[in-house]
Amino acid sequence: MLVVMEEGASEAQIQKAIDRLVGLGFDVHRSTGVVHTVLGGVGGKDFEPELFAVMDGVKEAHRIVSPYKLASRSFRPGGTTVRIKDVEIGPGAVVVMAGPCSVESRDQIERSAEAVARGGARVIRGGAFKPRSSPYSFQGMGEEGLQLLRGAADRNGLLVVSEVMDQTQIPLLAAYSDILQVGARNMQNYNLLRELGKQRSPVLLKRGIAATIEELLLSAEYILSGGNYDVILCERGIRTFETYTRNTMDISAIPVVKKLSHLPMVADPSHGTGRRDMVPAMARAAVAAGADGLLMEVHPDPDRALSDGAQSLDPQQYAELMLQLRLIAKAVGRTL
Amino acid sequence: MLVVMEEGASEAQIQKAIDRLVGLGFDVHRSTGVVHTVLGGVGGKDFEPELFAVMDGVKEAHRIVSPYKLASRSFRPGGTTVRIKDVEIGPGAVVVMAGPCSVESRDQIERSAEAVARGGARVIRGGAFKPRSSPYSFQGMGEEGLQLLRGAADRNGLLVVSEVMDQTQIPLLAAYSDILQVGARNMQNYNLLRELGKQRSPVLLKRGIAATIEELLLSAEYILSGGNYDVILCERGIRTFETYTRNTMDISAIPVVKKLSHLPMVADPSHGTGRRDMVPAMARAAVAAGADGLLMEVHPDPDRALSDGAQSLDPQQYAELMLQLRLIAKAVGRTL
Amino acid sequence: MLVVMEEGASEAQIQKAIDRLVGLGFDVHRSTGVVHTVLGGVGGKDFEPELFAVMDGVKEAHRIVSPYKLASRSFRPGGTTVRIKDVEIGPGAVVVMAGPCSVESRDQIERSAEAVARGGARVIRGGAFKPRSSPYSFQGMGEEGLQLLRGAADRNGLLVVSEVMDQTQIPLLAAYSDILQVGARNMQNYNLLRELGKQRSPVLLKRGIAATIEELLLSAEYILSGGNYDVILCERGIRTFETYTRNTMDISAIPVVKKLSHLPMVADPSHGTGRRDMVPAMARAAVAAGADGLLMEVHPDPDRALSDGAQSLDPQQYAELMLQLRLIAKAVGRTL
Amino acid sequence: MLVVMEEGASEAQIQKAIDRLVGLGFDVHRSTGVVHTVLGGVGGKDFEPELFAVMDGVKEAHRIVSPYKLASRSFRPGGTTVRIKDVEIGPGAVVVMAGPCSVESRDQIERSAEAVARGGARVIRGGAFKPRSSPYSFQGMGEEGLQLLRGAADRNGLLVVSEVMDQTQIPLLAAYSDILQVGARNMQNYNLLRELGKQRSPVLLKRGIAATIEELLLSAEYILSGGNYDVILCERGIRTFETYTRNTMDISAIPVVKKLSHLPMVADPSHGTGRRDMVPAMARAAVAAGADGLLMEVHPDPDRALSDGAQSLDPQQYAELMLQLRLIAKAVGRTL
Repeated sequence: MLVVMEEGASEAQIQKAIDRLVGLGFDVHRSTGVVHTVLGGVGGKDFEPELFAVMDGVKEAHRIVSPYKLASRSFRPGGTTVRIKDVEIGPGAVVVMAGPCSVESRDQIERSAEAVARGGARVIRGGAFKPRSSPYSFQGMGEEGLQLLRGAADRNGLLVVSEVMDQTQIPLLAAYSDILQVGARNMQNYNLLRELGKQRSPVLLKRGIAATIEELLLSAEYILSGGNYDVILCERGIRTFETYTRNTMDISAIPVVKKLSHLPMVADPSHGTGRRDMVPAMARAAVAAGADGLLMEVHPDPDRALSDGAQSLDPQQYAELMLQLRLIAKAVGRTL
Repeated sequence: MLVVMEEGASEAQIQKAIDRLVGLGFDVHRSTGVVHTVLGGVGGKDFEPELFAVMDGVKEAHRIVSPYKLASRSFRPGGTTVRIKDVEIGPGAVVVMAGPCSVESRDQIERSAEAVARGGARVIRGGAFKPRSSPYSFQGMGEEGLQLLRGAADRNGLLVVSEVMDQTQIPLLAAYSDILQVGARNMQNYNLLRELGKQRSPVLLKRGIAATIEELLLSAEYILSGGNYDVILCERGIRTFETYTRNTMDISAIPVVKKLSHLPMVADPSHGTGRRDMVPAMARAAVAAGADGLLMEVHPDPDRALSDGAQSLDPQQYAELMLQLRLIAKAVGRTL
Repeated sequence: MLVVMEEGASEAQIQKAIDRLVGLGFDVHRSTGVVHTVLGGVGGKDFEPELFAVMDGVKEAHRIVSPYKLASRSFRPGGTTVRIKDVEIGPGAVVVMAGPCSVESRDQIERSAEAVARGGARVIRGGAFKPRSSPYSFQGMGEEGLQLLRGAADRNGLLVVSEVMDQTQIPLLAAYSDILQVGARNMQNYNLLRELGKQRSPVLLKRGIAATIEELLLSAEYILSGGNYDVILCERGIRTFETYTRNTMDISAIPVVKKLSHLPMVADPSHGTGRRDMVPAMARAAVAAGADGLLMEVHPDPDRALSDGAQSLDPQQYAELMLQLRLIAKAVGRTL
Repeated sequence: MLVVMEEGASEAQIQKAIDRLVGLGFDVHRSTGVVHTVLGGVGGKDFEPELFAVMDGVKEAHRIVSPYKLASRSFRPGGTTVRIKDVEIGPGAVVVMAGPCSVESRDQIERSAEAVARGGARVIRGGAFKPRSSPYSFQGMGEEGLQLLRGAADRNGLLVVSEVMDQTQIPLLAAYSDILQVGARNMQNYNLLRELGKQRSPVLLKRGIAATIEELLLSAEYILSGGNYDVILCERGIRTFETYTRNTMDISAIPVVKKLSHLPMVADPSHGTGRRDMVPAMARAAVAAGADGLLMEVHPDPDRALSDGAQSLDPQQYAELMLQLRLIAKAVGRTL
């Protein structure tokens, strides 16, 4: 903890700050400069620096120790590879997860699975429980959707990733999926995260639309601290003032997370842009920036999709994109 | 649905857009201008306008009908008053809900209850289950905290508002609280919202830090559409680029919500600013802008609070603020 | 300067950071903690902390000394009052500046001046040179507009505030105006700011739509450091993800600036919201939060205004609002 | 213009909206739906839709015609190539512009020019007049810097791009530079833009940190409408809530601009991230997303740079990056 006193802070104010640091278990080093006095606190317990920032005579306060530990790169400098059956998600090959936003029917998911497998994806995505901003929108097929998804995946040699909306759904989702997806709206649903920490299923954790990278890593820490180390992070767009795209895809989050954390980082250009005409460029950008994988929406007939059709590629567009992505992957020394 | 074709859109592109509107059940009116052709679709089913926005030859598409209905002002033009025992939250008196961030001990909550009741609050707030961004922070006392909170409230003639973190906690929270609070991080936890729609307990729904006002009203619609009409909305700060305050409190959301919706709208200047030195000014601003109530953190000893101490007022600061707020309320024709 | 080394930083990395601090003229205090080593640098010259943040082995770096000095509260703890003829802008009475967005005609500005003076404003606003996002929009009447504005002001006992778009316009604007306004888009037009520092005319400096409060104070510092101490700051809305209002008016900037700086702080609810139906609530909120004045758009016939009609009050709405504002001002111990 | 009336709007309110549309020169088509009445206005003059949005009984209003015309893709569907001597900036080869943030000395700029030319850049960048947020920071060498820059460029077969801070500096900058750069802070300095429209020098226009893509194109329209069609746009990061990077580089702006406009679009990963360790990944991403060029900071000794050292590559890092970029360019069918 570093506490910087204001210019002209009184000795009493400085002493009060020192006392509080000591009360929290810190050894305090005091540096008296020409303008400011700085207090360095070492070894105490973690707490919010704002508590000092509002004290009289205090200019600002900073936490020194990272609030996350197990998620930090220094915990596993070599990086983590999440292994599921014969698929490895990590610093090696770029792994593509593709499929429709929602499972809608047997025919739709079978056609989807065939198309994405043929194009080179290793994992099929598809929602059975859909978080929708309107209560009047299609909310997903539930367990029946999961059954259809699993069947289609198995017939095409694909793994399954599907979203779990709260902790009561974990057993159901775990029965049908290889990877449990936590959606952006649930990134700080701590009861869900805590429960996922007790599972042995890999988790794909999406960044919230207003979450900082530090908060994403803190949410991962909830899962890791429960003992589940198979966590995959995902950038899927943040909310900014720009409205042409649905969200602003923060491509820089990819190299930043790779620097700060050992966890694999994938990117979702479908939600990241909300527009299928922007998906190819952003998928290429993500791979060029070092993403370990992609999550993309592909639908056999996007114009008739029950959800997210505007951001879904059709099989032909997807196949062409995969060819481009192979070239980009090669250019950054990876395969796909 | 309004679909604006691009300058130079071909007749085939226009026809394709018309066909899709018809396929979705719309009657289509076509207006051919000098530059643009505009298609007005009436009577079809609701869907995402982005689906049209990405079609070839389409410039933009707009939804005409509001996606929320029960939450809109036109549903109850006179406004809603939520009545709980002898407290009315609505267009009449300004209602203050105050208390600590978390219940920490019997002594702490008793002293809090006494202080907030003496100052004029009608409701005590206090968390028993805390959503914390770090898994290593204090997570709340659980049911024991609720028991202490209820006892302190009853002894001081106060109602209780406390946060419910997921739908499994509803029975427990409902047993001890008069108002169930949905935190900002859970504003789009639809399973929780849907379940709250089936309850008879009033709900205090906080705006998410990156939620638009429309999304806040859509989340309220989830609860209302289940049959629970006692919903109170709350502005508590949004996330922007400014870092001096923890969030940027969007005071304008107060009059905007009052215009668009019939639901009561309160404001939380503690989370809105994250700094106790800014709470009084923002509490005054909220009342001046027309808030129906305030939610504020008050702690008998903020510097020793286990959570959110930096934004908690001490009893003395709170008492002084209540005097100021009475003058502001009077200036806008209300009481407090 | 505080430099926090990463966990596990090597002695060579630490030494390199120390050497650089020394090279920049700092005395260095080294604190070695269990996890992190912290270097405190005192007395060196100011520079960007990012330069250290990207060094190997460095976790983060913080500047200790505020980058602004003359604008800081500690420079004049009692606060600044800008005196122009018989008007004082500062901690005393709340001063209202009102008038149309643009000067459009003699009749329009005369009727505006009469209305705003009658309602209690002390200053008339009106643009003669308009920064418009489209080159095809009305760009202002130029010098003729200034003549009309000055005449109307004088006949009604009002001061004049009008916008200066670049440094070449200063002599012209200074000839007709009592206060030179720097618009939000020009808050970081440093050549303009530097030139204004050499003037003796008071300056009204508006916060840019994406400017932090610190950046606003740094821009003020440009003017102050040239010797012109009559600077009035203005909050006029920042850009966020919310689209219902044109901007999000950051009411909390008012108390924050009052804490950090001695300069007067006014608020512009017209640009802050972009909607005339939201102006009264936000004007009240600004005064309740401690604003030293208001800048508001009033037009004799807003629906026919050549610019910004949507956010202009008509004389009747303005007159009613002034009555409300007097009550709010009184409630916070001020007059208007 | 499309005006959507509220549910339950009265006939008088509808008529008032029609009258105003007619008064602005529109032919009005009225569509009466079950819930909403929609008014389509064709052929009138452009104005702010907010003016209708605040009318009683109006739900929302939309402009149909794009506010920019000369900047739109439909004006030149094949795309624009800006030709300067033997360099072509447009849909062909990817053009790299590199060099130090500021010209600091003859030795520094000579070493920079040699390094960037050797690596494959065609244009050298270097500021002589620097917009700095603090008045106490280094403000540039002025004309002497331009002389040094020009000499170094000529000796190495490079073009020169340098920033012009206001319209009075145009003659000076035009005498030494091949491309006049408008910085992000000046994107809406309309007096500068208007004057640049009268020049024959190509202009590099940077997106403001809070500017929408539409606003960027409107600013380009100012230059184009004056008759200067050689405009190059540049994405350089927008301001969001994320603080790890200095700005959030909006890579999606690249394909969006390429869709909406015919103008070349380049990207600046140095300002886009503010951290040299993130520049390579973002430079690769920009090229993969379709950027027509890059603007990057390269300094012979970044740690001793007088400005922006944290985001400058050293010559070795730059040379390695250029090799990577060639592979990415090839993967998207271009050269570099």
